Amino acid sequence: MYFDSVEAMDRAELEQLQVERLKKTIENAKKSPFYSERLADFNVNDIRTADDITKLPFTTKNDLRSQYPHGLLTKPLEDFVRMHASSGTTGTPTAIFYTQKDLDTWAELMARSMYACGCRKSDTLQNMSGYGLFTGGLGIHYGSERLGMITIPSGAGNTKRQIKLIRDHNVSVLHIIPSFALYFAQQVQEAGFKTEDMPWRIALIGAEPHTEEARAKIEEMMNIKAYNSYGLSEMNGPGVAFECIHQTGMHLWEDAYIAEIIDPKTGEHVAEGEIGELVMTTIRREGMPIIRYRTRDLTRFIPGQCECGRTHRRIDRITGRADDMMILKGVNIYPMQIEQCLMSMPEVGQNYLIELVREGVSDHMTVKVEIKEEFFVEDMRVLQGLQKKIAKTLCSEILLTPRVELCQHDSIPKTEGKAVRVIDTRDED
Amino acid sequence: MYFDSVEAMDRAELEQLQVERLKKTIENAKKSPFYSERLADFNVNDIRTADDITKLPFTTKNDLRSQYPHGLLTKPLEDFVRMHASSGTTGTPTAIFYTQKDLDTWAELMARSMYACGCRKSDTLQNMSGYGLFTGGLGIHYGSERLGMITIPSGAGNTKRQIKLIRDHNVSVLHIIPSFALYFAQQVQEAGFKTEDMPWRIALIGAEPHTEEARAKIEEMMNIKAYNSYGLSEMNGPGVAFECIHQTGMHLWEDAYIAEIIDPKTGEHVAEGEIGELVMTTIRREGMPIIRYRTRDLTRFIPGQCECGRTHRRIDRITGRADDMMILKGVNIYPMQIEQCLMSMPEVGQNYLIELVREGVSDHMTVKVEIKEEFFVEDMRVLQGLQKKIAKTLCSEILLTPRVELCQHDSIPKTEGKAVRVIDTRDED
Repeated sequence: MYFDSVEAMDRAELEQLQVERLKKTIENAKKSPFYSERLADFNVNDIRTADDITKLPFTTKNDLRSQYPHGLLTKPLEDFVRMHASSGTTGTPTAIFYTQKDLDTWAELMARSMYACGCRKSDTLQNMSGYGLFTGGLGIHYGSERLGMITIPSGAGNTKRQIKLIRDHNVSVLHIIPSFALYFAQQVQEAGFKTEDMPWRIALIGAEPHTEEARAKIEEMMNIKAYNSYGLSEMNGPGVAFECIHQTGMHLWEDAYIAEIIDPKTGEHVAEGEIGELVMTTIRREGMPIIRYRTRDLTRFIPGQCECGRTHRRIDRITGRADDMMILKGVNIYPMQIEQCLMSMPEVGQNYLIELVREGVSDHMTVKVEIKEEFFVEDMRVLQGLQKKIAKTLCSEILLTPRVELCQHDSIPKTEGKAVRVIDTRDED
Repeated sequence: MYFDSVEAMDRAELEQLQVERLKKTIENAKKSPFYSERLADFNVNDIRTADDITKLPFTTKNDLRSQYPHGLLTKPLEDFVRMHASSGTTGTPTAIFYTQKDLDTWAELMARSMYACGCRKSDTLQNMSGYGLFTGGLGIHYGSERLGMITIPSGAGNTKRQIKLIRDHNVSVLHIIPSFALYFAQQVQEAGFKTEDMPWRIALIGAEPHTEEARAKIEEMMNIKAYNSYGLSEMNGPGVAFECIHQTGMHLWEDAYIAEIIDPKTGEHVAEGEIGELVMTTIRREGMPIIRYRTRDLTRFIPGQCECGRTHRRIDRITGRADDMMILKGVNIYPMQIEQCLMSMPEVGQNYLIELVREGVSDHMTVKVEIKEEFFVEDMRVLQGLQKKIAKTLCSEILLTPRVELCQHDSIPKTEGKAVRVIDTRDED
């Protein structure tokens, strides 16, 4: 059943492994200019349990920027064989360097990930993402070859050729950007093929955050099983956490990373199962270890064990960025929490708006909610009932009761481009 | 001095190695559907010397097309990990499959090639070519990592970011398409930098055929040493033949390939040093061996030994395609031969035209040549002298004496796009 026995390791053993690797990581990290200073006074013997990781300071994106390009490297430059950099020509970029051993580890984790969602040596994978500095392209590519799949580096674009390659070579696994998948399914149909006649079986769609609904739509339109994953170049790239065939969250490979979920305001661990900011530590990277990296990505650990038997904990879909967090009366609230509540109610339409205002010394949240036409009746008592129901549902999620205003269909102004969901006037004059 | 001792192997030993590997290749090839039939009656013991390769039949592009996709594979599909296909959505494509071992061999040959022109582990290479199905991108990438250089997969385009990466990361080696190199040099200057202040040292510019003059111009404008190379996806991709630091032809790796140069009409070997069609046999590829592949590329072996000490023979720049060959009175003539003669004469201008006509039972070639204005004097004797000189120079190259017509500057009609250099009316009614 398993690609790697470490995936089903007993939790106590796994945590022991983490402690050992964390200690080695700290010692190794101290060889870099950045950590030799940052951790100068840190005694590695203070790490006795996995929880002792909280004794270490965080590393932020700004640290990576200020240390660009070489401040976090533990070895001489000539020991490295790859560099990926953040794109953009303005501002200070970040750069991640890999030794050959780091590339091997990454490929192994990637292969393990693909195996977990059902990919096998006998499969053929078409890598429909761009290559280059984007770690998604080469990450999937190396992992696919490592697993032994026939890897077709088709790259992005050229839909007609993609379809021909898939048909000619009996392609069973696609790596495809989720936002491109629905367009592609349409193109396949316009080219005269039925998606159920295509040879594909599995789509890896982790490159962009997307909702469960988007996944369901991709699976339906393409006649495929679509698997979500999580990665970021600071932690190598893709292959950090991956769904298994049960699609109930993404197993995060805890033999290679220590993951924590913190309150982005206090930096403290949140309670088990609560949403917070994911913080990551590499414990199998030799050339450029990163300790307690603030990913800014919001997720939670999914409680309980997965049916597949893997003991590595699962994280939930990324529900937003820590930078989106609002604090109201000392409570952390994410717009995504409110959206999920609203969208679960049949009466609610497409649009909503969160307003934060200061009245005297007190802050208030108002949630304006568009109601579907058929629910907008003349009976005030019915409307007030709905208002209360929405407020109560929101309160159960965000732990305080907002004011709720019901709005008619299309009455909340739409913005060009990305929707504005939050208006915060509290700090204005 | 050498990356691999096999590069300076004694010729007799090298040929012995070729014979052994050719025999194994034939036995292996017979496991494929195509060669099991094509070589059914071939007795491998008929190979005693390297020259016995001529006993084997050719393989053509059309064979690859008719065998698409799997006819040449010697192993079950699940033993392969990579496929590259010719681009295009019309017509039958060709596909090349690689096992992991084949990828390893390719990376090794590629690393050896880059070492030969001065690349070292301590260098940083920026791979400015597209990735994807084009073998140039991943070919250079894998070779660069194998050699241990820091490899920056910048991909094509985005000139500003390319410049920033080169400066930030002290990039010493570029892989750049020759036709892009001059534009890029200009962009660097327009961005306010001097090319002599850039950290680069070596440009790998093999992806497109180009002239010695183009190389000289790239070297001058970029302040760089530019190295030519040869490869084709049927023989893995780049890394088949590569210039060493002496830039006197491309060493063709004869421990991995057997190269022949034939008369494309008769299929016979041409005399040593003469131009003909390059024919290639893989002797280190396990998954998809190809025997006596007609590349259609025209080149010659460069006689003598290179100063670098490598014993593998050198081939010259590709001077054209076998498909361009004209046959006149039983002699094979390539337009490129005529162009080179003409361009070496100071009196000759930019334009010329080759006309082939049938007069009764006899065929004739007329070469119309534009003469620079300052040489177009009124003295007929001088002009006739020039006419004879051109005819004689051409005869020494193409072995027959064409009629030469001198034309005034701009009197030969120009065509839109690619110049028409040959008009052959011999088979018209």
